[in-house]
Amino acid sequence: MLLLASQSQIRLTLLQNAGVEVTAHPAPIDEDTLRESLQAEGATPRDIADALAEAKALKLAQKHPEALILGCDQVLALKDRIFAKPATPEEARAQLQTLTGQTHQLLSAAVLYHDSKPIWRHVGVARMTMATPTPAYLDGYVARNWPAISHSVGAYQLESEGIRLFSQIEGDYFTVLGLPLLPLLTYLSLRGFIPS
Amino acid sequence: MLLLASQSQIRLTLLQNAGVEVTAHPAPIDEDTLRESLQAEGATPRDIADALAEAKALKLAQKHPEALILGCDQVLALKDRIFAKPATPEEARAQLQTLTGQTHQLLSAAVLYHDSKPIWRHVGVARMTMATPTPAYLDGYVARNWPAISHSVGAYQLESEGIRLFSQIEGDYFTVLGLPLLPLLTYLSLRGFIPS
Repeated sequence: MLLLASQSQIRLTLLQNAGVEVTAHPAPIDEDTLRESLQAEGATPRDIADALAEAKALKLAQKHPEALILGCDQVLALKDRIFAKPATPEEARAQLQTLTGQTHQLLSAAVLYHDSKPIWRHVGVARMTMATPTPAYLDGYVARNWPAISHSVGAYQLESEGIRLFSQIEGDYFTVLGLPLLPLLTYLSLRGFIPS
Repeated sequence: MLLLASQSQIRLTLLQNAGVEVTAHPAPIDEDTLRESLQAEGATPRDIADALAEAKALKLAQKHPEALILGCDQVLALKDRIFAKPATPEEARAQLQTLTGQTHQLLSAAVLYHDSKPIWRHVGVARMTMATPTPAYLDGYVARNWPAISHSVGAYQLESEGIRLFSQIEGDYFTVLGLPLLPLLTYLSLRGFIPS
């Protein structure tokens, strides 16, 4: 049984759909503080995603020291700038305006703990290119999709109208959704944690 | 209003989720005969996917001559060999055995008709690399997933346990699902068929 240190429904669903025996055990950490301190130290977006994923796995390992635990995190980076979830519709509008016409990265980190030690880690990267929607379309998009988009870093949701904002998506879809599923499944199979 | 010449629920859902006004009008054509005659003529997998998508759009255009119509088709190709849906569990097992350890292509074609003329076409390509599961695992996979996999060319379903068969997926996820959604939405926006 894999313990998922995340409250993300989509990650749980992806693992369950793949036939992995998994239960969700959200491990709340102070993400904002950790992220900000890493940024202050000059950590790259990739390092930050990896460190946050590890912090969640470690937190849960303190409660379940012998378990197999998966920690995950996703970071949106435009060059070296990292985006947080928008707190207001105005912030969402501003984030979208910054992203239009640009290619940003989604970095999805996963860290596996077993017997309280890290045994595997991976950061998947997807490159997301936004089109240049008109200001009126962006205004309407935020009005139609708030508050749903307040839960999304970058203020878009690809599973609904947000896909209309994009002209190109390169990279593994599971990485876009927040979990580098294929390398994870490959490792779990190789180690005999799931049948192969 | 876009008319979708397909009975594929996933294509309809993808378009609806993206906010496109669309209704499904399956346009049955004799796919097997058309595919076989194209293969006999030496057509490439890409040409076959495109021709089948166009045939469906054209069929529906005969009923709705002024409408905006989308025809779609997906072909699975291992080098020049094209796979059909498996008719029996034994065929499914044989298809999977052929695909393991190899990289095959999924070609997703879309053709738009308007006023009974083709106005846009695109073929998206995804590269799918299967792992090398054990024969026992493949036996169990077919037993657990038949008859669901009888509807899938190649005898796998990525939205469930089928994802476990893969080691790498390169290319746009929507193309994997059977519809090159991003280039289609870009064209529909540019032409003013949907807001942008």
